[in-house]
Amino acid sequence: MPEILHKVGCRSTTTAAVSDALTTVEGLSGWWTNDTTGDAAEGGALQFRFPAGGFDMEVVEVEPGRHVRWRVTDGPEEWVDTTIDWDLRQDGDDATVLFAHRGWREPVEFMHHCSTKWGVYLLSLKSLLEDGRGAPSPDDVKIDSWD
Amino acid sequence: MPEILHKVGCRSTTTAAVSDALTTVEGLSGWWTNDTTGDAAEGGALQFRFPAGGFDMEVVEVEPGRHVRWRVTDGPEEWVDTTIDWDLRQDGDDATVLFAHRGWREPVEFMHHCSTKWGVYLLSLKSLLEDGRGAPSPDDVKIDSWD
Repeated sequence: MPEILHKVGCRSTTTAAVSDALTTVEGLSGWWTNDTTGDAAEGGALQFRFPAGGFDMEVVEVEPGRHVRWRVTDGPEEWVDTTIDWDLRQDGDDATVLFAHRGWREPVEFMHHCSTKWGVYLLSLKSLLEDGRGAPSPDDVKIDSWD
Repeated sequence: MPEILHKVGCRSTTTAAVSDALTTVEGLSGWWTNDTTGDAAEGGALQFRFPAGGFDMEVVEVEPGRHVRWRVTDGPEEWVDTTIDWDLRQDGDDATVLFAHRGWREPVEFMHHCSTKWGVYLLSLKSLLEDGRGAPSPDDVKIDSWD
């Protein structure tokens, strides 16, 4: 099945700060969308909203500092039941983030868009961790007429 | 086979400028790497060099304003014989660029890195077209310890 893959390295001596940015509403609001609500702990449900729509996620798994998995429960039909994995690892002075959005049924044009946009948001996460300031929606980098 | 997909829209009333940025050494030097040499026309061979290495490409197909295909002839082993397709289309005031890097054998960590990095370079291409200035290597956005 088609999947979207990405990687960033964040200057940080531990993966704990990355973990916090993925497992708290405050952290998620700092790099993905400022309209984030819900419970980011394992077993919780998260609501991410953007000007054009949004996604509901189930927090399937949280291993602090190592791994987070979400499953999409509502949103665009192409996203429903897809999963998003965040694998964290320390490499010297870098906290490495390996990202995978799996379970796309077809490599549709919306997947092209989402792939580029995920890259933009991972760089926003990197900026949040390194400089204390991300670029979450609605102040995110726009890539095309879809946003 | 795993593939890297991306999309950007560039404010432009025709796809001709995008085509120029993909089919001339000057254009390619303006958004991917300033160390670009060779012949970017159909049937030509291109050499792209970066501080850490580089890629040689065969220009398999050029349909001006519509499509460009490259095949990797030398470089990192994961890249050899992969293909890179650029599909261009006009959508109102936007020249839409659909990108696909196909033929990866495995979704290795290097593919995660290259996916994010391609996103960075497509945004560089968009900046070149819209603002007259891209961010090609060695002045590209760094994403991790690999570059």
